Amino acid sequence: MGLAFKKIGLIGRYADDSLGEYLNNIIEHLQKHKVEVYVDQATVDATPVKGAKSPFETLARPELGNHCELVVVIGGDGTLLNAARSLVEYDVPLIGINMGRLGFLTDISTDQIFSRLDEVLAGQYVSEDRSLLSAVIYREGAEISRNIALNDVVIHKWEEARMLEFDTAIDGHFVNSQRADGLIISTPTGSTAYALSGGGPILHPTLSTVTLVPICPHTLSQRPLVIDGHSEVEVTISDSGHGQARVTCDGQIVMGVSPNDKIRIGPYERKVKLLHPADYNYFELLRAKLHWG
Amino acid sequence: MGLAFKKIGLIGRYADDSLGEYLNNIIEHLQKHKVEVYVDQATVDATPVKGAKSPFETLARPELGNHCELVVVIGGDGTLLNAARSLVEYDVPLIGINMGRLGFLTDISTDQIFSRLDEVLAGQYVSEDRSLLSAVIYREGAEISRNIALNDVVIHKWEEARMLEFDTAIDGHFVNSQRADGLIISTPTGSTAYALSGGGPILHPTLSTVTLVPICPHTLSQRPLVIDGHSEVEVTISDSGHGQARVTCDGQIVMGVSPNDKIRIGPYERKVKLLHPADYNYFELLRAKLHWG
Amino acid sequence: MGLAFKKIGLIGRYADDSLGEYLNNIIEHLQKHKVEVYVDQATVDATPVKGAKSPFETLARPELGNHCELVVVIGGDGTLLNAARSLVEYDVPLIGINMGRLGFLTDISTDQIFSRLDEVLAGQYVSEDRSLLSAVIYREGAEISRNIALNDVVIHKWEEARMLEFDTAIDGHFVNSQRADGLIISTPTGSTAYALSGGGPILHPTLSTVTLVPICPHTLSQRPLVIDGHSEVEVTISDSGHGQARVTCDGQIVMGVSPNDKIRIGPYERKVKLLHPADYNYFELLRAKLHWG
Amino acid sequence: MGLAFKKIGLIGRYADDSLGEYLNNIIEHLQKHKVEVYVDQATVDATPVKGAKSPFETLARPELGNHCELVVVIGGDGTLLNAARSLVEYDVPLIGINMGRLGFLTDISTDQIFSRLDEVLAGQYVSEDRSLLSAVIYREGAEISRNIALNDVVIHKWEEARMLEFDTAIDGHFVNSQRADGLIISTPTGSTAYALSGGGPILHPTLSTVTLVPICPHTLSQRPLVIDGHSEVEVTISDSGHGQARVTCDGQIVMGVSPNDKIRIGPYERKVKLLHPADYNYFELLRAKLHWG
Repeated sequence: MGLAFKKIGLIGRYADDSLGEYLNNIIEHLQKHKVEVYVDQATVDATPVKGAKSPFETLARPELGNHCELVVVIGGDGTLLNAARSLVEYDVPLIGINMGRLGFLTDISTDQIFSRLDEVLAGQYVSEDRSLLSAVIYREGAEISRNIALNDVVIHKWEEARMLEFDTAIDGHFVNSQRADGLIISTPTGSTAYALSGGGPILHPTLSTVTLVPICPHTLSQRPLVIDGHSEVEVTISDSGHGQARVTCDGQIVMGVSPNDKIRIGPYERKVKLLHPADYNYFELLRAKLHWG
Repeated sequence: MGLAFKKIGLIGRYADDSLGEYLNNIIEHLQKHKVEVYVDQATVDATPVKGAKSPFETLARPELGNHCELVVVIGGDGTLLNAARSLVEYDVPLIGINMGRLGFLTDISTDQIFSRLDEVLAGQYVSEDRSLLSAVIYREGAEISRNIALNDVVIHKWEEARMLEFDTAIDGHFVNSQRADGLIISTPTGSTAYALSGGGPILHPTLSTVTLVPICPHTLSQRPLVIDGHSEVEVTISDSGHGQARVTCDGQIVMGVSPNDKIRIGPYERKVKLLHPADYNYFELLRAKLHWG
Repeated sequence: MGLAFKKIGLIGRYADDSLGEYLNNIIEHLQKHKVEVYVDQATVDATPVKGAKSPFETLARPELGNHCELVVVIGGDGTLLNAARSLVEYDVPLIGINMGRLGFLTDISTDQIFSRLDEVLAGQYVSEDRSLLSAVIYREGAEISRNIALNDVVIHKWEEARMLEFDTAIDGHFVNSQRADGLIISTPTGSTAYALSGGGPILHPTLSTVTLVPICPHTLSQRPLVIDGHSEVEVTISDSGHGQARVTCDGQIVMGVSPNDKIRIGPYERKVKLLHPADYNYFELLRAKLHWG
Repeated sequence: MGLAFKKIGLIGRYADDSLGEYLNNIIEHLQKHKVEVYVDQATVDATPVKGAKSPFETLARPELGNHCELVVVIGGDGTLLNAARSLVEYDVPLIGINMGRLGFLTDISTDQIFSRLDEVLAGQYVSEDRSLLSAVIYREGAEISRNIALNDVVIHKWEEARMLEFDTAIDGHFVNSQRADGLIISTPTGSTAYALSGGGPILHPTLSTVTLVPICPHTLSQRPLVIDGHSEVEVTISDSGHGQARVTCDGQIVMGVSPNDKIRIGPYERKVKLLHPADYNYFELLRAKLHWG
C-alpha cells in the first residue's frame, strides 16, 4: 500500500528538553517507513536534537511549508497555533501530538505516537478546515500592523489598572461603546481557549462564526455575541486618556494601541487543515477536557 | 406607484381590550390605500372589534395564510411567535407592531404605525429569513408529538423539585449526560429570549446555528454550546425515576415526557420571512432592549 | 479512656437495599465498644435490616433525638438534610457517612467507617454549628405553612412555562420586582448545592449570611445578593395571573403558592451541630467536589 | 439648634475644572451657617479655586483629618475612595457628593447639595461603618509594601499575555492553585465595583466578609468565594516563569510582584465612617445603579 504522505515535516515545542527523544524516535520511525523527514530549523535551534539515530535534514519554516505534504507538531496547543500561523500560506495539513496534557488541537498522546502515525500514513484520518482571523491595526488611517490568529485576537488593557473604553462596529454598523478589561474576538477553534474563561460559549469548530467576548464588562448586560464569520469587526480605542491597550493574536503580543487607534478583525482568506486520528470525536474531547461526567 | 402588498392580513394579541382601537385604525388606514384587509378570525373571536369604521372580512388562519401577501401582527413578541408558527407553511411575510414595550420581533411602535405601514406599502422595508426548529417526541420508538418553534424548544423538569437527568446526542454522537433543571435548544432568534436568561450568548439572527443552553446545570463546566443549524439534536430523558419533564415550543406547553422518551430537535424545512422598517438595525435594537450605554 | 458518646442513633438512607449491611456492621462495631445503639424506626421501616448480628432497639425520630448523644447518618447529603431538619430541636450532633459519592455534609467514606467512628468515640472530631432557615407562607395575612431548611428555600414556577413575577423585600425594605424562573434563598451550607448551579457564590459554611440567587432572571443585571443572616426576606408572588409557584425546603416540596401569597424567610432560632473527622478541611472538600486542580 | 458638625473639611476631585464653582458655593453656604471650613491642600493645588466669595483655610490631608469633624467629598466614587484611605486613621466621618453620575459612595447629587448638607448639619443622617482591607507584600520573607483598600485589592497579570499562576491560602489553609488573569479580593463595599464585573455577588455593605473573585479563571468550576472578614488571605505568585503581576488597591497601582512573592490581605484595624442622607436606602441605590426594573 502506498503512503498517504511521503514528505513529512516535524515542528517541536520551543526549548523543551524532553523534546529531543520524541523527535529522534519519530524520525527513526518515519524513516523506517521510507518517509522523507524534515525538521523545522527553529525547533533544532532552540533544542538541539542529540543522539539522532539517523541523519535528518532541517529546513526553515517556509521551505518546510513548501516541501512537506504533512507537518507533525509535537508540543502543546501553543506549538500548534504557532505552526498553523506560519504554515497557513502553504496549504500543508498539520497533525498535533501533545507532550503533556491532552490539547484541543494536539489530540494524540505520546504513548500512541507510532500507532497513530501509522494510521495517518495509511490514509486513515479525519481532516478538518479551521478558520483564522486577520487583525489589522490602523493609526491615523494608516495600517501599522497586520497579523493572523487561529484562536483569538484579544484587545486588553495594558499597564493600566483602569478599564479600557472602546467602540465596536460590525460590518460598518455601530454595536456599542464599552468599558471593560478588554475584548476577545474568537474563532470557533478559540472558543474553548481564553474566550471560555471569559464566559463565552463553546462553538463547534466547523462553524463559520466569530464570537465577541467582553472581558469583565462594566455593564452587566454586555454578553458574548456570535456573528457571521465573514463579518468585519472594527474596534476603536476611545479618546479618553485611559487607553493604553495591547493587541495579541493567539496570546502573542502584536503591539500596543492607543486612543483613536482602530483594530479591524475579519476572516483570513486561507484555512488551516488539521488532521485527527480516524476515531476523532470532538464531543469526546470536550468531555475529557472539561471533566464532564 | 403600485402597492408592494395589496392583500394584508391582521393578527392581534389574544384577548387584549386595547387591541380594538388599533385594529380599527389600521383597517381604516389600509382601506384608504385600497388595500384589501382580512382580519384573523381567532383574533376577533377573542377580542370583538367594536366600532369598526368600515366593514372588514375575517378569515381563519389557514385562509389568511393563503390569501394575504403580508400579515401585520399587533401585540408583543409572543403574538408574533404564534403567528409565525401558524403561517410558516404559507410563505407570507410578517411584520410586527408592539402594543407595549419594544420587542425583538415587534419592532414598530404604535405611534409610528401609519408612517411605517406606508413605507412598507411603498416597498421600503428590510426582509429577513428566520430559521425555525422542529421538535418531535418519541415514546418507545413511536412519534407521539410533532411541533415547531421560532424561538426555542425547552425541556424542563416539571412537578418535580429534583434536577432532570438527560443524555444529549448531536448528529448521532453522544455529547454528555447532564443533571440540570432543563435544556434550552434555541434558534438565533430565540437567543435574546429565554436562552439569554439561562446564560446563553447573543447570536445574530441571520446565522444558521442552534444553541444548547443547560438550565442551572449541576456540573459547572457545562456551558452553552453552539452548533450548526442543520444538526439534529437528540435528548433522551434518563431512566432514573426523577424524570417528569415537559417540552415547550416558544413557551407553549407541548406535552409531558417521561424516562426513556426521546426528543429530536432539528431544522424545520421552511423559514419565516420577517419584515422590518427600512432603517432597521439589529444592534440598535440590542442596545435599546439590553440598556447598553 | 471514656467514650465521648455512649448512646448513638443511626439513621439510614430511605429504602436503599445496600443499607442493611452497613447498618449491621456499624451496630456490631459500636456494641463492641459498649455503646448503646438505637436505630431510627423510619429507616428500618423503609429498609428492613436483615441478618443483624446482635439485637438492637429502634426509636421513633423524636425519641432518637431525646435519647442519643450523637446520631450517625448513613446515606447521602439528602439523608443528612432530612435528619438535621427533624433533629434540630434536640441539640444532638450529627455525623454523616456517604454511601456513594463524597458529599458536602456526608464526608466520611464507607471504607473509613470504623476508623473514623473510633476517632469520634475517642473525642477526636471537629464540631461546626450550621444555620438553618425558617420559611413561613402567608395567604391573606394568615400563616398557612411553616417549615425549616438547612440548605435552601426555593420558590420556583410550577406547572407554568412562563416566568414567575415576584417582589422581594429585606427587613421591610423593597429590593426589586423580578421576572425569573424563581428565587433560591440559601444558607452558606446550601451555597454549594442548588444555589451554585444557579450562579451563586460559594460561602464558607461558618458565615452568618443568606444568599438570594435569582433563577434565570429576565433582567441580566439581577445578580446573587448576600445579606446578613439575621435578615428577614419577604417574597410576594405578583398579582399578574402567571403566578403558580411552589416552595421547597431542601428540595422537599412544601406547598404551592399563588398570586399575593407571601413567603417570609428568616433565621431559624436553633442550629445544627455537625461533626467532622479531626482532619476535616473545608477547602479540601471543595477541591475534591469541584474538581479544582 | 446646635450644629452636628462645626468644623468641616472639603476634598474635591483631582484636577477637574468644574470643581471650583461647587467648592465656592459649598464654602459660602457652610460659612453662612457659621461652620469653620477647611479645604484639602492637594485639591486646591490640582484645581485652583478662583473667585472665592470668602477666604478659606487650606490644610494638608493629615491636618484635615485631625481638625475636622466631618469631611465632605465632592467628585466621584474614586475621589471618596482616596479620601477614605487617607483619612481612616483620623476617625473623621465622610460624606460624598457626586459631580456626575450617581455613585455607590457619593450618593448626593449636586442639585441637592445645600438641602442635604443642611440636614446633615442638623444631625439628620445615617452613619455606616465600612471595612477596609490591608494588603502587605512580602519578597523573600521581608515586607516590601503595605497598603489599604476600601473597595478591593487586585492581583492582575501585567505586561504579560499569558495567565497568571498563583496559590491561595486562607487562614493558613491551602485553598487552590489557579491559572487566571488575576484575583480580586473585595470588601462588601467593593462588591459593586470591579468584583461585580468579574462575576462576583453583591454583598450588603454592612457585612463583615471578604469575597475572592477569580478573573477569567482557566478552571470553569472556580467560582467567587465569600469568607469571614477576619480571615487572612495569602496569595503566592507561582514559580513558573510567567509571573509578572501587579497589585492594585482601589485601582491604584501599588507595585509589581514576581514569582514567589506573597501578598497577604486581611482586615484593616480601623473602619471608615460613611454618612448618608437620612432617607438613604441601599436597595434604592442598587436599583438605580443596576437599572433594575
